[in-house]
Amino acid sequence: MNPTIVIIGGGFAGVRLARDLKGQVDVLLVDQNNYHTFQPLLYQVATSALESDSIVYPFREIFHNRPNVRFRLAQVLQIVPEANRITTSIGEIDYDYLVLAAGSKTNYFGDKDFEAHTHPMKSVPEAGQLRNIILENMERALGMDWYKRSAVMNIVVVGGGPTGVEMAGALAELKNKILPKDYPELDFQLMQIHVVDMADRLLNTMAVESSNYAARFLRKNGIHLSLAARVVSYDGQSLMLSNGQQILTQTVIWAAGVTATVIPGINPQSVLPSGRLKVNAFNQLEGYENIFALGDMAGMITDQTPKGHPMLAPIAIQQAKHLAQNIQRLLKKKPLVPFVYKDPGVMATIGRNHAVAELKFIRLHGTLAWLAWLFVHLMSLVGFRNRAIVFFNWMWSYVTYNRSLRLILKPLSK
Amino acid sequence: MNPTIVIIGGGFAGVRLARDLKGQVDVLLVDQNNYHTFQPLLYQVATSALESDSIVYPFREIFHNRPNVRFRLAQVLQIVPEANRITTSIGEIDYDYLVLAAGSKTNYFGDKDFEAHTHPMKSVPEAGQLRNIILENMERALGMDWYKRSAVMNIVVVGGGPTGVEMAGALAELKNKILPKDYPELDFQLMQIHVVDMADRLLNTMAVESSNYAARFLRKNGIHLSLAARVVSYDGQSLMLSNGQQILTQTVIWAAGVTATVIPGINPQSVLPSGRLKVNAFNQLEGYENIFALGDMAGMITDQTPKGHPMLAPIAIQQAKHLAQNIQRLLKKKPLVPFVYKDPGVMATIGRNHAVAELKFIRLHGTLAWLAWLFVHLMSLVGFRNRAIVFFNWMWSYVTYNRSLRLILKPLSK
Repeated sequence: MNPTIVIIGGGFAGVRLARDLKGQVDVLLVDQNNYHTFQPLLYQVATSALESDSIVYPFREIFHNRPNVRFRLAQVLQIVPEANRITTSIGEIDYDYLVLAAGSKTNYFGDKDFEAHTHPMKSVPEAGQLRNIILENMERALGMDWYKRSAVMNIVVVGGGPTGVEMAGALAELKNKILPKDYPELDFQLMQIHVVDMADRLLNTMAVESSNYAARFLRKNGIHLSLAARVVSYDGQSLMLSNGQQILTQTVIWAAGVTATVIPGINPQSVLPSGRLKVNAFNQLEGYENIFALGDMAGMITDQTPKGHPMLAPIAIQQAKHLAQNIQRLLKKKPLVPFVYKDPGVMATIGRNHAVAELKFIRLHGTLAWLAWLFVHLMSLVGFRNRAIVFFNWMWSYVTYNRSLRLILKPLSK
Repeated sequence: MNPTIVIIGGGFAGVRLARDLKGQVDVLLVDQNNYHTFQPLLYQVATSALESDSIVYPFREIFHNRPNVRFRLAQVLQIVPEANRITTSIGEIDYDYLVLAAGSKTNYFGDKDFEAHTHPMKSVPEAGQLRNIILENMERALGMDWYKRSAVMNIVVVGGGPTGVEMAGALAELKNKILPKDYPELDFQLMQIHVVDMADRLLNTMAVESSNYAARFLRKNGIHLSLAARVVSYDGQSLMLSNGQQILTQTVIWAAGVTATVIPGINPQSVLPSGRLKVNAFNQLEGYENIFALGDMAGMITDQTPKGHPMLAPIAIQQAKHLAQNIQRLLKKKPLVPFVYKDPGVMATIGRNHAVAELKFIRLHGTLAWLAWLFVHLMSLVGFRNRAIVFFNWMWSYVTYNRSLRLILKPLSK
């Protein structure tokens, strides 16, 4: 009988691993959604540039023609390592090998007010809700006296990393080019977009010149930057910063960080203070022979990575590819090979024709970086159909300076 | 000062009228959504063939470059004809002329059980929810003993008009071609799709040969037809028909009819028993000089139309075009011209390469009718972008026998 490998989570790591585990193994992928989400483009859904449907892809479609891969739509409740079993919302599932690849969740650093009043952007429903809120704010502002409009129209992005910067750039384009055509009755001078970050520069994992380039571009497009500033409190109306600044806003987007997803049942001694799981160089969980962790959940502490690898898609994908090979070695009782990360570089788009990219041998700013960003993201989407639709939407927006997706699509209450 | 014309509802009639009211008039369109919905394609959203975003279009985009048309996102609560005013969720709005074009809602004929347990399909969120339910049923069936699966997989469509027939055809394709690839573990012999109608034939507003053609095609594709049968009761598990038949199903789609939307404030004597509003040949509401009703809301009783016109898009559009001209005449104190309906014919698609179309001089069945249906619907969509995306999706599904949109996209509870 073939060994059963259960993978929890169908993000970049989970999907890659399931695809690569060919041959005499039974793979069971468990996820709480029936689709893979291409998270790097969520901000484009939130800013009306892309349709949610075009950045997600059904798992069952991905694994057509792969009879050794099954999928189950379920929430994982608990791991029971003693019994080689997980308990889920649809019952118990036994495994021979278990791979934890459930990714990360929004990190509010324990602050209940921020959690209650700000908007995360880690999933398609969250991005869709944010789109609704931004558009509804404009509709609401129309019914108000002009001096009250600013607080309703303002948007603050907390976090100046790639997600925050990309979001801010997209919001600037919305404010400057798109919304004024839709709302000729509103004065968009009243609308302020802020980015707040604790660090004294944007994109602080990248080179200083990339930070400066991003800051210059965003400022030129009317974005207010509050750097070296922490958010202190927020009640849904007024955001207080550590530098004494007060911003009146009803819309705060939380892009300040993520923390590993926690699944109960793992020995606490195998969990790092950050919430990531202690794994060795084979992504094997400390203290467990047949449990592995990948990507955002994996805290692989080495001399080069004292805090583990950064929580990025390329690492998740490389670890998954590598683990697929190691599992084949394990089954053939061959020695495992340690994981070595090959850094492909980082990139972030800031706006039309503007991006920063730091690749292995070259650092790019501007149009070339932007084209590289478009190409890499397009090619990383799952499925030809999605690529074609996203490409069409991008070309359409680029040529027409327009976005046709300014839709307030409400869920059903029934 | 220009007269203000307030239009309630941005369906086919409301959008057409606002587009055609050019010149010295101020037009205000009020709708509870910020987008126009192309209702004839909702069944394709429900059956994973189209993305919801591609059959809706933002009102503000439609009225770019039309400075005399404004839009307000609001729910209309009451009409106050004495004061020439409507009250809405965002406050009071005054009008010189009022046009009621709020369309129709699902008609449960007063049955609370059917309303509570069956699924309507009149809006994008409803179609999206139906898609989720159909796919979730398959996921749930996987976890059950095989003899319990049938009740979870079965689907009943109540209503054998164009909506019911198009839905049944799309469900047949899902069952026969699409879902078996996704769920190799399920036996789709267990899944039954039924259409129930009170009339003794499908499409009973069309010719008998069209009915027979549709019935033959659906039966050939495994659809069970229960004709000359009423639904008697449904508790969410078991549907009882008047012919004694009992169908175990957890999914009943209600396509049995619609009834005009009611807005409080109109003199009850101006309302027909059907709920439609009594209008004269100028679409002018009985007893009111400056209130008009269009489309599904308008009950224009003539010798040729003793029950009013059928509730169809072409009638709504023609009435709106005509009213735009009559309003211009009214403002110039010229005599009004009565409305005459020019019947363009009816068509319904039943499946791949199969449709029925009854046009003025010709009756078509099969591929030619199907191509005509595709063409008419594609050209009726608002906006080039939507046409391109829908066209691409149709070609894609046609060539690949696939639908990439089998997504369970859940709204956010927060």
